[in-house]
Formats: sequence, C-alpha cells, structure tokens
Amino acid sequence: MKLLGDTSPTHALVQWVVDSQWADIDVSTKTSVASSWMNWLACALGGANSPDADRLIRALAPFGRGDAQLIGRAEKFDPANAALIHAFTSNILDYDDTHWPTGIHPAGTVASALVAWASQTVVSGEDFLHAFLLGMEVECRIGLAVSPGHYERGWHITATCGVFGAAIAVGRLMRLEPQQMAWAVGHAATQSSGLVASLGTMAKSLNIAHAARNGLLSAQLARHGISANDRVLEARFGFSEGMGSRPLDESICKGLGQNWIASHNTYKPYPCGFLLHPTLDACLANADPSTFALGDIERITVNVHSLAQIRADRIHPLDGLESKLSLQHAVAIALLRGEAGVRNFTDDAANDLVVHACREKITVIAEEDLSKDEARVVIHLQSGQLITRSMSEPQPPMSQQALEQKFRELVAFGAPHCNADELLETLVRFPNMTNAADLSAMTVSQSSSDAV
Amino acid sequence: MKLLGDTSPTHALVQWVVDSQWADIDVSTKTSVASSWMNWLACALGGANSPDADRLIRALAPFGRGDAQLIGRAEKFDPANAALIHAFTSNILDYDDTHWPTGIHPAGTVASALVAWASQTVVSGEDFLHAFLLGMEVECRIGLAVSPGHYERGWHITATCGVFGAAIAVGRLMRLEPQQMAWAVGHAATQSSGLVASLGTMAKSLNIAHAARNGLLSAQLARHGISANDRVLEARFGFSEGMGSRPLDESICKGLGQNWIASHNTYKPYPCGFLLHPTLDACLANADPSTFALGDIERITVNVHSLAQIRADRIHPLDGLESKLSLQHAVAIALLRGEAGVRNFTDDAANDLVVHACREKITVIAEEDLSKDEARVVIHLQSGQLITRSMSEPQPPMSQQALEQKFRELVAFGAPHCNADELLETLVRFPNMTNAADLSAMTVSQSSSDAV
Repeated sequence: MKLLGDTSPTHALVQWVVDSQWADIDVSTKTSVASSWMNWLACALGGANSPDADRLIRALAPFGRGDAQLIGRAEKFDPANAALIHAFTSNILDYDDTHWPTGIHPAGTVASALVAWASQTVVSGEDFLHAFLLGMEVECRIGLAVSPGHYERGWHITATCGVFGAAIAVGRLMRLEPQQMAWAVGHAATQSSGLVASLGTMAKSLNIAHAARNGLLSAQLARHGISANDRVLEARFGFSEGMGSRPLDESICKGLGQNWIASHNTYKPYPCGFLLHPTLDACLANADPSTFALGDIERITVNVHSLAQIRADRIHPLDGLESKLSLQHAVAIALLRGEAGVRNFTDDAANDLVVHACREKITVIAEEDLSKDEARVVIHLQSGQLITRSMSEPQPPMSQQALEQKFRELVAFGAPHCNADELLETLVRFPNMTNAADLSAMTVSQSSSDAV
Repeated sequence: MKLLGDTSPTHALVQWVVDSQWADIDVSTKTSVASSWMNWLACALGGANSPDADRLIRALAPFGRGDAQLIGRAEKFDPANAALIHAFTSNILDYDDTHWPTGIHPAGTVASALVAWASQTVVSGEDFLHAFLLGMEVECRIGLAVSPGHYERGWHITATCGVFGAAIAVGRLMRLEPQQMAWAVGHAATQSSGLVASLGTMAKSLNIAHAARNGLLSAQLARHGISANDRVLEARFGFSEGMGSRPLDESICKGLGQNWIASHNTYKPYPCGFLLHPTLDACLANADPSTFALGDIERITVNVHSLAQIRADRIHPLDGLESKLSLQHAVAIALLRGEAGVRNFTDDAANDLVVHACREKITVIAEEDLSKDEARVVIHLQSGQLITRSMSEPQPPMSQQALEQKFRELVAFGAPHCNADELLETLVRFPNMTNAADLSAMTVSQSSSDAV
C-alpha cells in the first residue's frame, strides 16, 4: 500500500521506512547499529539502579502497571512507562552516544521504546535491529533538517527529535501501513518537547524519557486509526515551521538507504557532557598521564571554546548530576585520579573535599581561536614549574575493544548482578535470536528493589 | 516554607498558589469556577462515549491499568491515563469553554487531571474547586504573557499552557511545598507541546489530552523530589524564550488574587470552532429565525473576518470532526435545521446529502472591515428575494439557564445512562461535599463498553 505519490517529505520518509528491507543494508551499517545497541544497553544497565532511577520509579508507582520488564531491575511497568524509565536510566549517567553535527544521542529514545515494546511480544533480533536503525536514521535526518537553529533556540534536540525515532521504530515493529506511519509521525511531532533550560536538573533525562514514551504512544495511536496531521514535518504550523529555522524540503530524503546517517553514531568515552570531552582528553590522553597531588598545584587555567565556557564553567557542582557539566570538576578528577569513569561523577565525587579544593584553584577561559574539539590546560605547580596539556583534534571513535571495556565498567557499576561476559557473548549472536526479549531477560534483577 | 524572596516570576507565582486561601476568594469568582466545572462536566459526559473515545480507549488498553474511574464510562485506568482520556472526551465535541483574548479552553486540562487524581484519594468539593481555579488562573496568566505571538507561531495554546494548569492544580491538591511547585512548573514547561497543524485531526484533542496527563505527572515527579528548572518561565532557554514572543516578567503576577483572570471564562453555545460562532449567531439569533428548504436557496455568501476564512472556508468536511471547522457546514445546518447543537456536527450530519447540497451553494468571503465578532450571511433565494442576516457585536455570555440546558443536551447525547437532574442538584451542593469523587461516581456507566 502506498500513500499518494506526491512530493511530501513526510510521505516520502515514511514510505521508505515501510519499504525498507534488512537484506538490502550493507554490513558496515549493520555492524554500526550493533555497536549502538551494545552502547545503549551498557548505559541503560549502568543507570538502572541509580538513586535517581529509584526515585523516578517510586514516583511512577501509581501509574502504568503492566507486563513490560524493566532492563536491569526487577519491576515491570506498562510498555509506555517502561520506555520512559529505560530512556531515563540510559541517559542519567550522561555516557550515551552522540551523532554529529546535530548533538543528538540517537539510541536513547529508540532503543528504550523498542525494548519496552518487544518485552511483551515476540520480535526477532534482526527485526529489532532493523527497526532500531530506521528509527535512529529518521531521527538524525529530522535533526539535521532543523540544525543548527533548533538547538540554538533552546530545544533539547535529543528529546525533540528523539520522539520521531521512537515512533518510527515501534511503528516498524507494528508493521504500520504508510498512512498509519505518517499519522505516527504527526502524533510524534505534536508531542515534541524539551527545553534546554532543563539541563543540569533531573528534567534533562526526563525530556528524553518523555520522548521515548510519547514516540511509542504515537505508533500505538496511529495503529488504532487515530488520525494526526500526516504531512506534519513540512505543514503550515507544523514541526519545522514551529521548531525549525528554515523550510523543510525533500532534501531530508537525499541518499536514503545509501548514506546511512545513523551509522556515523559515536559513543562517549566519558560519562559527562560532550563539551568537557576535549578537556578530559587533554588531561588524560597525554603522553605523560601522571597524576598530581593537591599540594603540588598552585593554580590551573583551562582554555576552551566559548560554548564550553558558557555551559560548563561551574566551579562547585552540587551533586553528581551537575558535576557532569563542570569543567573544573572534570579537570580536578582527571589530574588527581588519572581517570574519568562513572565513579568520578557521582554525588560522592562531587562532594569529595580534595576534589573540591582542587576545583577552587581552576579558572576557565573562553578562547576565540579554539574550536569545540580543542582545549588547553595549563598547570602552575607550587614548584614554579608549568605543565601544559592540550588537545587539538577530534579523537577517533571508540574501538570495539574500548566499547566492550565500557560495557563491563557500566555493568559492574550499575547492574553487578549481571554477567557481563554472558551478555557480551549474547550480543554477538543477537541478530540471529528469535526473541529479542531473551537478552533483556538476562538483565533482570532477582531481588526486587526497595524503590516501589 | 518560602522560596528565596527574589524577583523570579516563576517563584512569585508558585508562592502565591501555595499560600492561596479559599476563604479569601470573592463570591462571584467562586460562582464562576462552579460554572466552569459544570460546563466541563457537561462536555466530558457529552464526549465520553463517542466513537473517537472508544477508539482511544482501545489504543490505551495495554497501558495504564489502575483504579482511577473514567467519567461517564465503566472503565478504570491509572490517574495519568484517566486524565488524558478525560481531556480528550471533554474536548472532542469542540463545545468546551474559552478564555479571551488568549483563546485557551482553560478548564479542559485542569479538571481532567483533577478528576483523575481525586478519584483515588479523598478531596473535598471546596479543595477541588480551589485547585481548579488556581490551575486555570496560572494557565491563563501564562497564556496572556505569551500572547498573541505564541498562537500565531503555531502553538496550540490550550495544550501548551494547559499543561501548567494541570500541574498547578494537582500540585495544590498534593499540597506541594513552594520548591516542589516550582519544579512542577519546570516539568510542565519542558513537556509543553502541541502544534496547530494538528487541528482538524484527532491529534487536536490529543494535544490537550497529553497536556492533562503531562501536567499531572509533573506534579507527581516534583512531589517525589525530582528536580527541574525552578525558574523555567523566565529562564535562559526556558518557556517564554523558546515559545513566547517577548520576555516574561513580574507583570504576570499583577493583581493576583484580586483580578481573577479565570473568572472571565466563557462557555461555547455551539459545539464547533469559535471562529464559526458569529456566523451561527447571525443565522440563528436573528429576529426571524425561520428555516429554509434546500430548493428555496439559489446561493449564499458568507462574509467573515479573514482568520475565519483562512481557517474555516471548508466546503465539504469529511466527517463530524472536520465539520466543526467548516463555515459552509455551519451555515447549512443553521439555515436548514434552525439549530446548531451536537447532533448537527456528527459524521451523519457531515455526510447528510441535503446538507451537502446546501454547502455546495455557499461561498465564504474574507472582508477586511469585519472584526472576529462579526459575520454577514446573504441568502439569495430562487424567488429573487435577498435575505441578509448579520451579527455585529459579541454575544453576551451564556446564562446559568442556558448552561443547564447545555448540560442536559450533552448528558442526553453522550451519557444517557446518567440522571441529569440529579447531577445538576449535586453540582449545587458540590462545594460542601466531603468527597469530590462522589459526584463523578454518579456518572459511571454500569455496562462496560465494548471498547476495551
């Protein structure tokens, strides 16, 4: 079944989604989607049992009883709330993935909704990965079509565009017809929300959480024949007009199925805002990765791109959440501890007295000549010695080995009841599994949390 | 407990909500909120068993099991989904209330969330009405602060501002502390959504439905200590910056508790878009309200304000939903049937062959000199006679008697199992009831619908 053969970008996009065949997709794209899946699962397990997740689950306890199993925990919710909780836990450590140049974390909403939906129906690993890829692809293409004006205006793009990814992916699992898929996009667009003002609070991860829930719901509404604007991306008073910065046209479909935007997804090497990464790279990836004692340091200056200074010049973050947006904190833990893993961005780390004293000595300076990929850290030692560590180019994407290391770190941190080796082995054969839910079932905690 | 005594408009607004006392509110404001409540209940019952409501409830069946009783039906859902469904059913007939000049239908999100929350806890009638009033007041004030640019840019203001009303009202029932209430507003803002492009589809009532659900959820998240931006209305990258058209300042608080904006709420006399109302008034409220036979009519011209022409020049609406945005349909049923009640905006009415033939003869013309309150209908009869019916001033608000008549009409249309007399008597003593849910319990349908 086809929609009218007109030139609506929305129609062209959904028709392509409905017609897409897994067999037609090249191996390297398939490999990349498997990496995105591994990285998402690592993040979701890493955040699954955080105090913030416990609090969210307590808040949602009166809502959404159901049979969808949560990843890495014991509780079950309905699929909509399960999607919401997954997206929250997979983002709360700020360790997820990033698509450039949009800055979207594409996997979060999509995988969260898929895992929730797949937990109460039988979906093959292949169909799961295919839907995951299609959702991320549409999400990133919509993100590109409204960038950079969209984020600059204050829209939290992972949420505002992520809702489309979740709708498309779940809609694909449901085998929606083109008309239904176009409605699903319409429902997603009219629920698209998320303010940048929420960053630095728990509402930031909730933006992404709501988007996952709303995307799943969009597909379900459309499946039941509930109408929405079916050309919403380009319509008068539609998505791009309201939230974009220029008219959206058929270029959104350019190279569909050939140039997979989602296959360029990258994975965070540090659990914090990406604006801190060049500074952490400067501190850690140096030829001389030695650490310092607090008493050795007189003062430190950190020179960064202006956006990093505006968003992350934060001398004393109040908690772990805020420490993920603090350049001073990043430099302090990297220089004192020689690492920047999940244990260095917790409430304990943020309130560590030695870290606090070190942050006190750090000044952040915006430097016009530095790009977003650059940073320069100058350490003035008490001895009079001056040490400069700088990063002047984008780092290569994470290797498969580094990704596996990250997976193990996160399982140990957030879901120590899981067997990381078994999970990694299962991920290798995931595309051949007949029931994707068998993998998530391996993550279930036997002991019920005290959250609910 | 007080928030810091600074000049944040968000803080001032939530502090006022937390401190408000029912005893301090004047009688006429209390009377007006009781009217808004009666009108909302009428609309919610009128739409409760519509085919669209059945379809929505089928779609939501896998989600949100719980103990919150739906108004006018047999099913129960969790409070979040009950709020969503109430807001949908109370809006689907397009018969609700309207605040001017924002164009917000203020009761929808607020009452929908309150009824859902109150159904699973004990709330007095007085506390219910107080929370209802506070929610509508904050919603309308935020709406005014972003008007007219907000709607003009394509935001469906009943949804985008309604989410605040629901959050405030439910937050008040929960007795949130000021900090929590400020977080609730932050959660509401970052979920605020709804595109005007959805109008004319079922996604339009869903915009309002999502807002009711999201508002209730915002209060519940804040109650559990889940943080959000607590100055979100005026913050950098916050609500007014992202979705308004000018900076939001402390004028939003002007006259709080003295000049009740929400007390100027009006109630629709016709179940259709308010842009059609002057035209219907012209056709129906004339000194000569005689009807016409199709054969008598040669052609009709309808002169209206340009916005009415742009939005509602729609010669052949496909269904009842679309007929609510068709000037031609409105004129046809008013002239042929001499009425414009709920039975004239159904799928049957939209597809009536005589109505169709009459719409065919009607031309809509935008006239620069006409205001939004004006319309002129010129009927050219086959006999050569010319009849002009015009409306040149805003109509007075509905009388209490007319509101009761509307209540009876809607109960008979959408919830004939209810006893309208008993409900009207109960509404009179509602402020003195110890449990608000006793009223909604009177609307429960004994026979389970076949929807789920």
